[in-house]
Amino acid sequence: MAKPGKRTETTDSQTTKYIQISSDIIRRIRTGKLSPGMKVPSENEIIEEYGVSNTTARKALQYIELQGYVRRQKGRGTFVIEGGVARSANRILSFTKNMQNAGFAPSTRVLHTEVMNSEVTLDIQGRQYTLHAPVNKIHRLRFADNIPMLLEIRYISSSLCPNIIEHDLNGSLYELYENVYGLHLSKVKQKLTAIILDSLTMDFFNLTDETPGIMLESVTFCGTDTPLELERSVYRGDKYQFIVSATE
Amino acid sequence: MAKPGKRTETTDSQTTKYIQISSDIIRRIRTGKLSPGMKVPSENEIIEEYGVSNTTARKALQYIELQGYVRRQKGRGTFVIEGGVARSANRILSFTKNMQNAGFAPSTRVLHTEVMNSEVTLDIQGRQYTLHAPVNKIHRLRFADNIPMLLEIRYISSSLCPNIIEHDLNGSLYELYENVYGLHLSKVKQKLTAIILDSLTMDFFNLTDETPGIMLESVTFCGTDTPLELERSVYRGDKYQFIVSATE
Repeated sequence: MAKPGKRTETTDSQTTKYIQISSDIIRRIRTGKLSPGMKVPSENEIIEEYGVSNTTARKALQYIELQGYVRRQKGRGTFVIEGGVARSANRILSFTKNMQNAGFAPSTRVLHTEVMNSEVTLDIQGRQYTLHAPVNKIHRLRFADNIPMLLEIRYISSSLCPNIIEHDLNGSLYELYENVYGLHLSKVKQKLTAIILDSLTMDFFNLTDETPGIMLESVTFCGTDTPLELERSVYRGDKYQFIVSATE
Repeated sequence: MAKPGKRTETTDSQTTKYIQISSDIIRRIRTGKLSPGMKVPSENEIIEEYGVSNTTARKALQYIELQGYVRRQKGRGTFVIEGGVARSANRILSFTKNMQNAGFAPSTRVLHTEVMNSEVTLDIQGRQYTLHAPVNKIHRLRFADNIPMLLEIRYISSSLCPNIIEHDLNGSLYELYENVYGLHLSKVKQKLTAIILDSLTMDFFNLTDETPGIMLESVTFCGTDTPLELERSVYRGDKYQFIVSATE
C-alpha cells in the first residue's frame, strides 16, 4: 500500500518547484523582459538553470503554456505569444466590441457610480478639457473571459447624458450615448502613459508581482468641440497592447 | 563669529532631508502615482508628513520645480506638469522633428552599427513582418536637451538602403531614406507595450529608481507592402507620452 503521507510531501515539493520556476518565467514575460516572439528557456536550460529534474522542467513549461503566455512550436522551442489583447487605437471602439472582435467574452463589474457636484478637467498636450458640474462618474472593472483587464473611470457630461447612471452600465457606454441619448461620437483624443501599477490597482487585477500598466486618459467629443466624456483608465500592461497606424 | 564646523553639519543634514523628500515625491511622479495635472503635497502637508521645518519643505518643492516636474500656481498649489514630450503617434514623424516641434534640441549617440547576416522578424497583431538577410542594424541613444529619452534599435533592409551605416547617423533616418535613397514612406504600424525598465536600460537613461517605459515595436513601409525597416525601441515612461486621435 502506498504511504499517503510521504507521497503528499513529495508532490507538494514538486508542486512548489515547478510553480516557482513558472512564476519566475511568467514574471519576466509580465515585466517585458521576455516579449512576444522571444524564446523562453528550453527544458534543458531550465534543468541546468534551476537544478531540477526533467519532469519538473516539463511541468513548468506546461503550466506557462496553460496560463496562455507561450506556445510550443515543434522542433523550434517555446515562444512568448501576445499575451492578451491588442487594441487598435486609431478607431473609436468600445471595450465590449474590441473584446468580441478578439474572440473574448467581455463582462463588467460596476464598482461605483455618483453624480459629482464639481467640474472635472483633463490636460492633454498642453490643452485643458473641462466638464462642468454636475458630472456623472462611473467606476468599472472590465473583464475578458473573466480575466480583469482594465480599471476604468469615466466622467460624463450631465447636460448631454442626464441620469445615465440609472441605466444598465454593464455594456458599452458608447451604445448608450448613441441609442439612448442620440449622440454621435466624432473624435477621441487619447494620452497613453506608462506606469507601474499601484497596490490598489494590483488588487483589482489579482496581481501580486510588480506589473507595468498603461494609463489611458482621453476626451471624447460629440460634434466639433463639445467634450462628452473624460476618461482615466488603467490597462494591464501584461495583457494589453496598443496598435497605432501612422500615415503621412 | 560663526562656527563653520557646526554650520556645515546643519546644512548637510538639511540638504539630505530636502533631497530625500523631493526624491520621494519625484518617485511618485515617475511611477505615475502622481500624474500630470495632479497636485503634489503642499508646504504644510510636507511639514506634517515628514516632520520638517518650513525651510526644508520649501526647499524640497523648489527642487522638484527646478527638476522640471511641477509648476507652482499662485494661490492654487503646485501641480505636476507633463514632464517630457508628448508624441503624436498618428503621423509619421522623426524623433528629430518631434523634438524640434516640442522646443527641445535633439541629439544622438550612435552605440553600435552592423550588417547582420540573418533575417529579422516582428510580430504585430498576429501578423509577421520579415526583413531578409543581410539587414543593417543601428543602435542609438536619442537625447532632448541632453536628457536621454529613447533607446532605439532599427533594422533596415539592405536591398532598399545599401551601405546606410556608412552615412552620418546622428540625425533622422527618415531623411536618409528620402534624400539619399529616394524612398517614400507610406505607413508605419506600431505596437506599444508597457514595461518596467531593466537595469541595462536604466543605466543608459541614468536612472536609479524603478521606472516604467514603453516598448515601441514598429514596421515602416515604403510602397504598399514592402517593409523598409523594423524597430524595437524603449521610451522612458517618465518623460514620454503618446497621443493618439481616434475617429470613426
